[in-house]
Amino acid sequence: MVDIDRLSQQMRFIVEIDKLKHIERQSALTDGTRQENDSEHSWHIAAMAILLSEYSNEKGIDLLKVIKMLLIHDLVEIDAGDTFLYDTLGNSTKAKREKDAAARIFGLLPEDQAVEMHSLWEEYEARESPEARFAFAMDAIQPLILSFHNKGWSWKKHGVVKSQIVDKKEPLKIGSRDLWEYAQTLIKRAVDDGFLIDDEAP
Amino acid sequence: MVDIDRLSQQMRFIVEIDKLKHIERQSALTDGTRQENDSEHSWHIAAMAILLSEYSNEKGIDLLKVIKMLLIHDLVEIDAGDTFLYDTLGNSTKAKREKDAAARIFGLLPEDQAVEMHSLWEEYEARESPEARFAFAMDAIQPLILSFHNKGWSWKKHGVVKSQIVDKKEPLKIGSRDLWEYAQTLIKRAVDDGFLIDDEAP
Repeated sequence: MVDIDRLSQQMRFIVEIDKLKHIERQSALTDGTRQENDSEHSWHIAAMAILLSEYSNEKGIDLLKVIKMLLIHDLVEIDAGDTFLYDTLGNSTKAKREKDAAARIFGLLPEDQAVEMHSLWEEYEARESPEARFAFAMDAIQPLILSFHNKGWSWKKHGVVKSQIVDKKEPLKIGSRDLWEYAQTLIKRAVDDGFLIDDEAP
Repeated sequence: MVDIDRLSQQMRFIVEIDKLKHIERQSALTDGTRQENDSEHSWHIAAMAILLSEYSNEKGIDLLKVIKMLLIHDLVEIDAGDTFLYDTLGNSTKAKREKDAAARIFGLLPEDQAVEMHSLWEEYEARESPEARFAFAMDAIQPLILSFHNKGWSWKKHGVVKSQIVDKKEPLKIGSRDLWEYAQTLIKRAVDDGFLIDDEAP
């Protein structure tokens, strides 16, 4: 027999996370028609992880764990909102806002699943496991791929320049040096094609 | 050294599937503010699979395989479009359109990954493995959950009545009898609450 209280808690969570579809990100879709939202982004990077795991620095990672992390990593933004990577003020209060959000949102689940999801989220945030590092690489490179294809839609909007992108994206090499190499070719082509300003050019 | 041709094919696919974010479904979000798209739906059901696998009829299923299927199962709609479950004409040509789409879209990937993804998609469509059956249950129950919470937004729009929903949703019991039980309680409540017409009521 199904434990109806347990299933109700699970369904409550499933309905709650529908709100992720309303959390707008700064990145626009590849065709630049509109910004993407967190649920679309989470789907995209989970699918990317399936295809790109061969580029993880550390071999033999647990892909299921990576994908679980990616599917739930942004749920805290239901309460905390999306903080643009280049927004210094927003980023100073982000950790506290997201911690409270995690407690509330994962707390909707039955205890065992609340613990598992909360702990996956903390593992992702800490970037101390091979899975968390590779997941982070997916999360970091995806908006760069979108921005390259939409010719810097959000960079232009916010006046973001090359040195800022390099600063924020270089950490993805902790998960995949190969994909950081690839990311650098995109950044270079964006400068060459004239839609990213190289603020360090002589 | 990275095989740059291989990585380019993978990136081509990753950019192509961004289009899934434009494929609008008939189901509206739980708050009824707008329809959801295929990428949002795919994210939602993949997250649901993590939480609900205990209700699979068959125990010990490969959750990673389930999630992979769910993340890619709708990609064919990039070419073939979303066919509303209650659209008889559209459904008569759906199989051919989706088969051609699978060949084109998965064909963008390097051969080994094209074969894996195409075969996952076929396995999902055939519903002959425990993983495919459970994945199908996720795909089938999610729009019902949305529709229950938005008080039958798409049912009203298309004049869908109870017997049609029962017909279309009952097959989800091949993946989870427990979740079909739960689905029936939602259908009953929708009728009791007056936003679903019971066409078989005396």
